Amino acid sequence: MSYNSKMYGLGSKRSIIREIFEYSKLRASEIGADNVFDFSLGNPSVPAPAEVNETVRRLLDTEDSVLLHGYTSAQGDLRVRQAVADSINRRFDLALTPQHVYMTCGAAASLSICLRALISEAGEEVVVFAPFFTEYRVFVENAGGVLVQCAPEEDTFQIDLADFAAKLTPNTKAVIVNSPNNPSGVVYSKETVTALCKILEEKQAEYGHEIYLIADEPYRELVYSEVEVPYLMKHYSNTLVCYSFSKSLSLPGERIGYIAVNPDMEDGSNVYLAVCGAGRALGYVCAPSLFQQVIAACLDVKVNLDAYRVNRDLLYNGLTACGFRCVKPDGAFYLFVKAPGGDAYALYEAAKNHEILVVPCDDFGVTGYVRIAYCVDRARVERALPAFRRLAEEIF
Amino acid sequence: MSYNSKMYGLGSKRSIIREIFEYSKLRASEIGADNVFDFSLGNPSVPAPAEVNETVRRLLDTEDSVLLHGYTSAQGDLRVRQAVADSINRRFDLALTPQHVYMTCGAAASLSICLRALISEAGEEVVVFAPFFTEYRVFVENAGGVLVQCAPEEDTFQIDLADFAAKLTPNTKAVIVNSPNNPSGVVYSKETVTALCKILEEKQAEYGHEIYLIADEPYRELVYSEVEVPYLMKHYSNTLVCYSFSKSLSLPGERIGYIAVNPDMEDGSNVYLAVCGAGRALGYVCAPSLFQQVIAACLDVKVNLDAYRVNRDLLYNGLTACGFRCVKPDGAFYLFVKAPGGDAYALYEAAKNHEILVVPCDDFGVTGYVRIAYCVDRARVERALPAFRRLAEEIF
Repeated sequence: MSYNSKMYGLGSKRSIIREIFEYSKLRASEIGADNVFDFSLGNPSVPAPAEVNETVRRLLDTEDSVLLHGYTSAQGDLRVRQAVADSINRRFDLALTPQHVYMTCGAAASLSICLRALISEAGEEVVVFAPFFTEYRVFVENAGGVLVQCAPEEDTFQIDLADFAAKLTPNTKAVIVNSPNNPSGVVYSKETVTALCKILEEKQAEYGHEIYLIADEPYRELVYSEVEVPYLMKHYSNTLVCYSFSKSLSLPGERIGYIAVNPDMEDGSNVYLAVCGAGRALGYVCAPSLFQQVIAACLDVKVNLDAYRVNRDLLYNGLTACGFRCVKPDGAFYLFVKAPGGDAYALYEAAKNHEILVVPCDDFGVTGYVRIAYCVDRARVERALPAFRRLAEEIF
Repeated sequence: MSYNSKMYGLGSKRSIIREIFEYSKLRASEIGADNVFDFSLGNPSVPAPAEVNETVRRLLDTEDSVLLHGYTSAQGDLRVRQAVADSINRRFDLALTPQHVYMTCGAAASLSICLRALISEAGEEVVVFAPFFTEYRVFVENAGGVLVQCAPEEDTFQIDLADFAAKLTPNTKAVIVNSPNNPSGVVYSKETVTALCKILEEKQAEYGHEIYLIADEPYRELVYSEVEVPYLMKHYSNTLVCYSFSKSLSLPGERIGYIAVNPDMEDGSNVYLAVCGAGRALGYVCAPSLFQQVIAACLDVKVNLDAYRVNRDLLYNGLTACGFRCVKPDGAFYLFVKAPGGDAYALYEAAKNHEILVVPCDDFGVTGYVRIAYCVDRARVERALPAFRRLAEEIF
């Protein structure tokens, strides 16, 4: 084959979410969009806060075009990185400087760059916790690594720490933690995080080399209960945080986020340089310049979470009342629902017959569950509840 | 080492352009910015056309925020890709559809993605023509390839076709052509392009496999003479065009461009899918959504080239009058000046003594030249000319 067959495979294998997306459009044209209850896409339904567009207008009115739309330094504009560092320091009592912050084109870029910066030899292992975002596998393998899955505790979807300890080997280079979690909506507790970091410290000492903790945090701001989302830098020195403003400011298309390197990391300044090099190697010249300035001005602004909270409560209460089982999610905008009989595709098909579109999640590393993305209009949730009840009567 | 040493090397090795950038800032603080004649950076000095910011304001006023700032499909918004295809078809009499266009985060992303999509095995070769943009080596090596350099014809900086033919081997996967050229400013003539494509056709037949032609065209719109810039798709089926709006709309920081696959390419739809897969593997979720819409509305808009043209003429005439030798550039915004005695670093140092900052270009694959970037205020050019004359009196 004259082109890269692996890349062809990645480009041509349509994900199940993409399949559902196409089906949803087709079905809406047949029976009307209001009659299709599509819960498949993790695309924020809450608009960006007004401050975002106001900031764009202000920047256009006041800033020199050549500077505003010009290259920033590769790691991002200095004042923007200072603002991000200040924000992290203020919220988590840390001491980051701009030299710990690297602006990126969103979370996928952050993860790809971190993995490329860290993985040194083919076959090094990256541990992830099921259920996990399916693209982790793509990014790990593109960096030459091997993905290793850990099982969850089934009832809580917290991390099974015994399984985690057993999965670490002298080949382990990094561990990715995603909390609040896509697709379960679970926030890993302080107990889970503390125990996890203790295991990592012990294994680092045993193996005599670093194991990096990558905190993938696009959902940090989307929390609906009185729970703390532990900041992993506070718990473990060798932590890199991958952040994105896609969800917190409802800007998923604008591709803006950052990588933050723990100032306590030994050799952290060299790891930061490896991040810079990996960004360069992957073709990232700088994060989009206008939106660098926008997020610097909007670091304390948040989307209105009430819509997500109401949807969560409507769906969680409605579904559990008619017999479905799922953990009540503290964050993100997903419900992770157990398929009766353990067949996610059977539940997906049965729901489809009631015009309900959900994502079967076997690719997320846990079989027998579907994901319901509740980042949709409340009206869709309300219209869907009777359909869920009819589905429950049919399958239970 | 616990992190990737190659990435560390890429991140820590400061480029000469970056060194000069830091020196320029320091020197400006010492003697005043007006007294430093910095010609080192290829950052557009002409502001974006008014239509760009007007379009941003209009989009903010009229479009739904969730859609405007939301994810587009990975290959880019369908209507944007249609607009890009229409524009190419109109100008070059071709028949592209949206399925031939993949929106990217600028030219570096376009190149990285194309190379990752095409290179299948470590050691496959990518031919470039000296002088060439130094990052080509980074992108080729990150995709597992080996960079092979061809020499230019010294007097014209056209391609030395005999050398090119000799450098092609059964391992050649792709050839990168950059015209108008960074750093020489030369436009490859129709004769050069025709002969180059004939050689490629013969070698494809001889080796029995495809050799892809990658047209890196960020400077296509920046042309100051009555010369044609041949559109490589018209000359060779296996062509991919890498375009960026960084220079044509003065938006280098916004990271917006595209890859176009020749509709005549055999297996082109599979190559397009490999491009999609490579974008996914490298962490590119979609090109920035707001600026996708902006460029679709501004495809026929161009920056005001007069400033660049005047600078070119002032510098070319001024420098050749006092003894410097360079090809008169038809495009881009660079003069490529021969160092007397063939020592680019000696000329760089001598110029620095007269507060003139230019880039020694040995890393661009041709020794003994410096690059003068004339994308600066005209006043800086006018102030610099006496300094160039004093430099000439000293060194000639």
